[in-house]
Amino acid sequence: MLVNGKHYTSIWIDRKNPSLIKTINQQVLPYRFEIITLSSVNDVIDAIKTMKIRGAPLIGVASAFGVYLASLEAEKKFKKLSNYNLYIDKQIQKLTNTRPTAINLFRALNEAKDLIRKENDISLKKEVAKHYALSLLNSELKRSKKIGEFGLRIIKQYAKKKNNKCLNILTHCNAGWLACVDYGTATAPIYFAAKEGINLHVWIEETRPKNQGSLLTSWEFLNNKIPHTIITDNAGGYVMEKGMVDLVIVGADRVSRVGDVCNKIGTYKTALAAKDNKIPFYVALPTSSIDMNITDAYSQIPIEIRSPREVKYIYGLYKKKIIEVLISPVKSPAKNYAFDITPSRLISGWITEKGIFHHFKHI
Amino acid sequence: MLVNGKHYTSIWIDRKNPSLIKTINQQVLPYRFEIITLSSVNDVIDAIKTMKIRGAPLIGVASAFGVYLASLEAEKKFKKLSNYNLYIDKQIQKLTNTRPTAINLFRALNEAKDLIRKENDISLKKEVAKHYALSLLNSELKRSKKIGEFGLRIIKQYAKKKNNKCLNILTHCNAGWLACVDYGTATAPIYFAAKEGINLHVWIEETRPKNQGSLLTSWEFLNNKIPHTIITDNAGGYVMEKGMVDLVIVGADRVSRVGDVCNKIGTYKTALAAKDNKIPFYVALPTSSIDMNITDAYSQIPIEIRSPREVKYIYGLYKKKIIEVLISPVKSPAKNYAFDITPSRLISGWITEKGIFHHFKHI
Repeated sequence: MLVNGKHYTSIWIDRKNPSLIKTINQQVLPYRFEIITLSSVNDVIDAIKTMKIRGAPLIGVASAFGVYLASLEAEKKFKKLSNYNLYIDKQIQKLTNTRPTAINLFRALNEAKDLIRKENDISLKKEVAKHYALSLLNSELKRSKKIGEFGLRIIKQYAKKKNNKCLNILTHCNAGWLACVDYGTATAPIYFAAKEGINLHVWIEETRPKNQGSLLTSWEFLNNKIPHTIITDNAGGYVMEKGMVDLVIVGADRVSRVGDVCNKIGTYKTALAAKDNKIPFYVALPTSSIDMNITDAYSQIPIEIRSPREVKYIYGLYKKKIIEVLISPVKSPAKNYAFDITPSRLISGWITEKGIFHHFKHI
Repeated sequence: MLVNGKHYTSIWIDRKNPSLIKTINQQVLPYRFEIITLSSVNDVIDAIKTMKIRGAPLIGVASAFGVYLASLEAEKKFKKLSNYNLYIDKQIQKLTNTRPTAINLFRALNEAKDLIRKENDISLKKEVAKHYALSLLNSELKRSKKIGEFGLRIIKQYAKKKNNKCLNILTHCNAGWLACVDYGTATAPIYFAAKEGINLHVWIEETRPKNQGSLLTSWEFLNNKIPHTIITDNAGGYVMEKGMVDLVIVGADRVSRVGDVCNKIGTYKTALAAKDNKIPFYVALPTSSIDMNITDAYSQIPIEIRSPREVKYIYGLYKKKIIEVLISPVKSPAKNYAFDITPSRLISGWITEKGIFHHFKHI
């Protein structure tokens, strides 16, 4: 999508030096648009852990590029196949350990591992890894585009009901192009609808504690001219109560085989408010986010517990510098659950690249 | 309650100079414990507007002290009764305009106005105003204490069910002693239960955008040794999903005659999550927060819309100074609804100074 009028994807191989990966540092948005270079697998690990790179589909793609960078490192270091393989396995394990909840990461790493193992010629392994990373990047891009096309049908349907009056969509967190490769998941239908000239406005829930809504989704929308308003997560219920929301679209980090959605903390409360006000609640996701091994999302999906510091302190801009300020008593403990579960009974439909599902059990 | 081991109420008349009102500056808590002096009605107006003083019962009491201070000013300025009355009416109007949602403010000002009007001797009017403010202060204090006693029964009931295992209570915003005169509303039963040695722990939702939960309730609890953990508002749903909450208690800013509760933004989402997880959801309130003129809370209670700056910026501590940092793109619009409505169907009971009501319609 557009940044200052120029088209970008969220991650790409450097044109001049194909052993370098370029990505956008999401840690400093919206204050600074900074492109960073990932030149080693450790760079990728750090970027995912510190959330310079975040969003379920993107961390999948980034981890595949991590394996590619690891293969470049391994080729320089080892002549013997067993040593080479040991190094790759170790790096994949480190990549696996970066974040526990989104399934895309594990899927990408498993697939990359299998493919690279099958190739016995060390000099060709890096090509296999690179090819996989690029094909995953392209798949995610295509999936987002398809989600946009299918989701557009939903938006058109509700826009029609409103007789060209402004359609109010609400979203939570950033399931935007920054979280994917391009277009996004929850945002893809919105970008497609705006392109078609549909009269719409998006309420963005800020999404504490990391505020991906107010920091990233708003920044995406400013750059791509999508009318929007930032509200607190708390206010999401009120705008629904007052009839100011026609449709909710959110993303997903992992979806169980019965359609329960693990997504950014707060999605559950928002879904409850939508249900209580009879507002359609859609989840947009690539099928790569579905984990068929999960039957009980509540007990089987590991929910990341991040540092309490993210609740007790916050980063903000002060005198043109990004600084961290304390926003609670130093001595009070805090707990930082990063995801929650929205049961399928609260979900109107799942917008995927394969179509829109209204009864998830039938997939 | 205790601050650094010493007992305080949230507002009082200065012992040495009874024409001065003392209160705690809630704007700088928890970073600094600062007692401020209100020496004019304008000081009171400013303190309520800027939320140095906040909380439905407290703004009621503070506004009554505002009328008292206005009476001192009027006596100095005017000999003629009509001029005196005109001045008082004007100041009461200004006090009325400070905040639109909580009913306690309007009730206190109406009562003060009536009483002061009935006294025709200018030299006695200030005594009438002072007496009313003090009697309101004492009434609120007694109401909080009674709420604590009645609420304690509820807590005991659930603590018994848990067989002395830790009882997990969740609260939103600050319906604490800082919001009242002492004890609080939602917190009064908690303070009483802790005093009785009941094993409990409180999840405090931070309560964006002004974070009265993470700033004020946590500070109260630290000072009064109540075990607690700060979570984001978003995480309130998750801790309920995971069975980590036994009971919810919140306060109220205005309650309709059918028991619908207007309270701090986000209360509605929290109530929905409690309902969905079959967790009892109690509202603690003095009956002074009930507005019998309101039949439809949704259309009749004016919901304050505060500055978008409170959403887009946040105050925090940096290098020992309280500063304001930007936490969103400068160009993105934001909307700041300060309260929402929780319908009575989501409420298990109303804890008042007159007892616990399970069917509000019967009051």
